[in-house]
Amino acid sequence: MNWDQCFAQRTALMRRSAIRELMKATAREDVISFAGGLPAAELFPIPRVKSALMAVLDEFNGQALQYSATEGLPELRDWLARRYSNRGIRVQRENVLITTGGQQALDLIGRILLDSGDRVIVENPTYLALLSAWRPTGAEFLPVGCDADGMRVEELESLARHKPKVIYCVPNFQNPQGTTLSLARRKQLVELAQEQSVAIVEDDPYGELRYSGEALPNIADYFNQVIHVGTFSKVLMPGLRVGWVIAPEAVIEKLTQAKQSADLHTSTLNQHLALELAGKGFLETFLPVLRENYGERRNAMLNALAKYFPKSATWTRPEGGMFLLVTLPRHINTSELLPAALEQGVAYVPGEEFHLNGEGKNTLRLSFANARRERIETGIKTLSRLMASHV
Amino acid sequence: MNWDQCFAQRTALMRRSAIRELMKATAREDVISFAGGLPAAELFPIPRVKSALMAVLDEFNGQALQYSATEGLPELRDWLARRYSNRGIRVQRENVLITTGGQQALDLIGRILLDSGDRVIVENPTYLALLSAWRPTGAEFLPVGCDADGMRVEELESLARHKPKVIYCVPNFQNPQGTTLSLARRKQLVELAQEQSVAIVEDDPYGELRYSGEALPNIADYFNQVIHVGTFSKVLMPGLRVGWVIAPEAVIEKLTQAKQSADLHTSTLNQHLALELAGKGFLETFLPVLRENYGERRNAMLNALAKYFPKSATWTRPEGGMFLLVTLPRHINTSELLPAALEQGVAYVPGEEFHLNGEGKNTLRLSFANARRERIETGIKTLSRLMASHV
Repeated sequence: MNWDQCFAQRTALMRRSAIRELMKATAREDVISFAGGLPAAELFPIPRVKSALMAVLDEFNGQALQYSATEGLPELRDWLARRYSNRGIRVQRENVLITTGGQQALDLIGRILLDSGDRVIVENPTYLALLSAWRPTGAEFLPVGCDADGMRVEELESLARHKPKVIYCVPNFQNPQGTTLSLARRKQLVELAQEQSVAIVEDDPYGELRYSGEALPNIADYFNQVIHVGTFSKVLMPGLRVGWVIAPEAVIEKLTQAKQSADLHTSTLNQHLALELAGKGFLETFLPVLRENYGERRNAMLNALAKYFPKSATWTRPEGGMFLLVTLPRHINTSELLPAALEQGVAYVPGEEFHLNGEGKNTLRLSFANARRERIETGIKTLSRLMASHV
Repeated sequence: MNWDQCFAQRTALMRRSAIRELMKATAREDVISFAGGLPAAELFPIPRVKSALMAVLDEFNGQALQYSATEGLPELRDWLARRYSNRGIRVQRENVLITTGGQQALDLIGRILLDSGDRVIVENPTYLALLSAWRPTGAEFLPVGCDADGMRVEELESLARHKPKVIYCVPNFQNPQGTTLSLARRKQLVELAQEQSVAIVEDDPYGELRYSGEALPNIADYFNQVIHVGTFSKVLMPGLRVGWVIAPEAVIEKLTQAKQSADLHTSTLNQHLALELAGKGFLETFLPVLRENYGERRNAMLNALAKYFPKSATWTRPEGGMFLLVTLPRHINTSELLPAALEQGVAYVPGEEFHLNGEGKNTLRLSFANARRERIETGIKTLSRLMASHV
């Protein structure tokens, strides 16, 4: 049996995520990791999680551990529907699908929307795991450049001739840049998508994590035919693997069919736990804690960058989320620098990973959420010395 | 935006599972449900689950709720590797992938193995959710008949001319028939698969649930190039969504790539909980409880069938698992009878759902695991009256 001759053609389009592999190397306590997009586990409210689990098991007994509906727990869907409803839009239970993390939402969306050769517009750079999830469908990516206000939406007009099917967008505190799509561009994006009959997939894992500036409306608020993806991973705990899709009913119906085959349903226990934590007020007390801590860490990183990094470097100034992107002079290759950085006890993700068209070799993504303040200064200082020796 | 014009071609091959839809209709307390393959939730050890969760959170704190490796927790992979190793085969951590239930294992296997037009040999009838998971790849199913000893393996020789790529098989207490592949046929299956260079996918959710007869070796014990799928759903609790694949390393590598895109990793908390329950001896005390209870329920159903069902009906006599299949005279259509059965408070799954080639319209699948003994007799009596009025 020669397995290599057995694999399906689409496997040629699959690869391991460089980041997830890198995370394994940086699990050592002595490494200051700016690499993975990990929340700060020391902030997780263990006593509250314990009491929530006890409450769930007391209330639902064996049913909390039984099979449950593919669409998700009705009460959790209702809670999300209320949370997304506002003066502009009314979201109902039928518009909500619970998924096994936001990643499964993206995977399922790719499965129901994309045929081989379909064109997908993405920010460049964009979320790496979106590319790996959708690439095996045979879809092609059309990159659009970004600046401090997010995707340069005006470029979409010239891409219309390629007849794109989907626009994928992380409007708030984008991964890897940390930038936010401006209000004017959100409106323009919706208009262009409507004109061209292109679906928008709005991926919003970080929207609740804003540390400065004013909250902007979701794209889904303007345009009720957006597929919106959310998750508890960044606002509660990623180990639960509970995310969701908010979308028109026809889309939810197809996604539900795809999810039945993918994993039957998302863990019953974890959905109950998420609802117990989110639905009974805990989330509203926990979000300010996250915002305060991550906001301080962001400030610490911005200050350390200003203090230590070479003048030839530039970086984004995120108003929220977990990441910022540093751009170094053209001749510096951050992938080549990484082994030396790891050796000196600091990890980052080379920005090349997130870019299409071979761009971004001189960029690096830094996560400020997972390292304590004092370690942020130390880590940035170490990196700056390394950079300086190559500038 | 017309969503119906937007969906990918593969969505035409997707559909909702009739069983999962039926389960919603049978969630009413007053319905005696022989329909879904649900474990008996009243047997779930809630106090033990609570103490296990506390132990996990005390030991691992925030890390129990953090992102974790796509392959699964190393300790859980090691535990499974030891469990599957025996004199015949040595399974190592690298041969184990943790999945979000057995269903995700099947989905991922389809993604890495099947191109459009590939042929897959399946028992007829077979597991419904396997068909829905693999159909969207464009694979074609070649059905093989079954008898009391499982798949008629001798038929495989005549199918060789179709150059099948994969044989999918549930050797122990098959769903929906409850039959077990005999030892002689296991050996013959392995020989034929080796000769023809066909991969075997051995799906074994029920193997530990044997109530009579002697345990048979796994197919994977004979042939180290089998992809073996297992799950905690039937031996612990399905709401955890923790399953696994045991396979050669080359296969695990591809499956890991596919899983990264599918949902990053399986819930960290649930993997810890499964390991805490399974790895510290609880499983060995819980399995006898399940075997005793389900065994009694199986006996109750077989007795009630013998006592009440028309002489023209036949049924399988499973040595384990959760299901048996009843065959009625040709002219009876069990799909047409279902509404009347539900009206009288009894649910089953029409056997047609599991069959290829339009067969099995006169069959029904009965699950004996989820109803208490006294309700089993009542339910079978009700069904028999309904059958009698149509025989």
